[in-house]
Amino acid sequence: MDFDNTERTELSQLGEFGLIKHLTQHIELTQQSTIKGVGDDAAVIDNKDLQTVVSTDMLVEGVHFDLTYVPLKHLGYKSIVVNLSDIYAMNAQPAQVVVSFALSSRFSLEAVEELYAGMLMACKKYNVDLVGGDTTSSLSGLVISITAIGSAKKEDLVFRDGAKESNLLCVSGDLGGAYMGLQILEREKAVFKDNPKLQPDLEGKDYILERQLKPEARKDIIELLKGLEIKPTSMIDVSDGLSSEILHLCTQSNVGVELYEEKIPIDPLTYDTAREFNLDPTMCTLSGGEDYELLFTIDIGDYNKIKNLPDFSIIGHITNTAKGLNMVSKSGSVHELKAQGWNALLKR
Amino acid sequence: MDFDNTERTELSQLGEFGLIKHLTQHIELTQQSTIKGVGDDAAVIDNKDLQTVVSTDMLVEGVHFDLTYVPLKHLGYKSIVVNLSDIYAMNAQPAQVVVSFALSSRFSLEAVEELYAGMLMACKKYNVDLVGGDTTSSLSGLVISITAIGSAKKEDLVFRDGAKESNLLCVSGDLGGAYMGLQILEREKAVFKDNPKLQPDLEGKDYILERQLKPEARKDIIELLKGLEIKPTSMIDVSDGLSSEILHLCTQSNVGVELYEEKIPIDPLTYDTAREFNLDPTMCTLSGGEDYELLFTIDIGDYNKIKNLPDFSIIGHITNTAKGLNMVSKSGSVHELKAQGWNALLKR
Repeated sequence: MDFDNTERTELSQLGEFGLIKHLTQHIELTQQSTIKGVGDDAAVIDNKDLQTVVSTDMLVEGVHFDLTYVPLKHLGYKSIVVNLSDIYAMNAQPAQVVVSFALSSRFSLEAVEELYAGMLMACKKYNVDLVGGDTTSSLSGLVISITAIGSAKKEDLVFRDGAKESNLLCVSGDLGGAYMGLQILEREKAVFKDNPKLQPDLEGKDYILERQLKPEARKDIIELLKGLEIKPTSMIDVSDGLSSEILHLCTQSNVGVELYEEKIPIDPLTYDTAREFNLDPTMCTLSGGEDYELLFTIDIGDYNKIKNLPDFSIIGHITNTAKGLNMVSKSGSVHELKAQGWNALLKR
Repeated sequence: MDFDNTERTELSQLGEFGLIKHLTQHIELTQQSTIKGVGDDAAVIDNKDLQTVVSTDMLVEGVHFDLTYVPLKHLGYKSIVVNLSDIYAMNAQPAQVVVSFALSSRFSLEAVEELYAGMLMACKKYNVDLVGGDTTSSLSGLVISITAIGSAKKEDLVFRDGAKESNLLCVSGDLGGAYMGLQILEREKAVFKDNPKLQPDLEGKDYILERQLKPEARKDIIELLKGLEIKPTSMIDVSDGLSSEILHLCTQSNVGVELYEEKIPIDPLTYDTAREFNLDPTMCTLSGGEDYELLFTIDIGDYNKIKNLPDFSIIGHITNTAKGLNMVSKSGSVHELKAQGWNALLKR
């Protein structure tokens, strides 16, 4: 009757990506309609005319969010956005979401309404329908699980594995802001704990706080690229930090990369705040995560279409796999890129 | 910075169904492709040729399962089956699942492998592909969230709202077994707590233990009905107990019902075990839940096709809404049916 754990390998030995790789290695796909299974931003299901794109994410209180400083409405909004971002990263359009949550009795109806209102606000903004879900109780914290469903024409889909040598590596917006926003919130939480009478000092930090608390998915970038008649050769959204996203693209495309540190877009507020915290701003972009920008590769022939657009930065180029994954620092020295993403399983 | 809970309505005041109704009342559907949103076993998305059917469920340790007596492999299996059951209840065929779980460090890799193996076993049996998911850490228990995706021709879909006066109310298999299996497991857990040296007494209880620990989804019933050229007028799967499922069908179809107690199919082992526990066997079917049988209504013209088949029981008929929802007891007295489903939010 007891579950006998004779062998025991700690999950922390594998880390999140290792665990996923280990578990999914034996999956066999048998359905004709399954175009793409585990391993990209979303799965793809054949529906003849349009392909259905499906992505799912789970957010756990105490791991992914801290309700001492995250308003529930923002949390609801962000939980939807995070999933839509995965659909856009396939160059697809989300249309529906299903939403499940587990709640402890510590939550009142008013609290759940706030959470739900934030979700519906994001649905409205991104023009998607909330079509189903499950609501249950939990013994401790709040758990949110969302699945987003979208569609795209077969020929429009962009996967992680299409990057080719000499492609340009591009990213939308700027990076590291969400991570620095989190540092600010964590600092003020600590201050508040020590002295509850002190007001939090968030002045002038609006941009990075918003990056953390109310991120947006780059629907506009997908539309912009379409208008420019650019179809990326590969794409991923930046949820775990630039470094691990580049690793995903390059590993799956079987290519190398040369990333230029000086080209990585960092907002001045992110930069200054990193300095204030004695952090290396570049490290914040590489490992910070939660920026939900789009990282993609394009054919070098598309360079002229993109070079002067403020929404994009060309941050490197794709090389032969033998050359490895490298970052050329501002001083000209070359460093190997390592995945240092947010690894929830290693963090605990 | 703090979330100020000025008003406070306890979730237990609303219950699970009340909460869902309250939260979903303001949902507006804007996507042309959304055929059906919240309120049925699954959502339906238009894809021209085929309609995509999507259902999601969340299972929380300590609420939906107890790992002291549920083997992880069975839990994985059941978590998939529960979702597929919702897709079959739409008269659709599942083809893909996405699977998320939150795990605490108390789980070893071997434990997660067991869970996953059970999921893949169910996927294989029901011929669906596991195409995506999310794996994260939790601070306490295990949380599993699964979304199943299937498809059906538009004309084949069966909703909850199609029951008509004079339709026959039918159910597959037998009811109450899963609930009695749970009672056995809970009893043996209590015995084990008092005296860990005693072996659990599960002898002769195989059928009801299997109903609880390793339920199956009634894919066979969908196929059987198709072979008989019967399209139910409404359908739902029995997850919360016969009583609350009948209520869902009747409320959404705006009809009444007359249910005959003597017609409710109960396996002899379920019956005897209920008696052993001093429980009313009928109450166990009405409120027990987790049987994952299919409850459906058919046109009276289909009576001859179904009347002698051992897989089905005709348990009542649909009446005018003014007649209400009633059960005729074995003694001939009439009782009003009330939703007494498993209400996870009320239970805690």
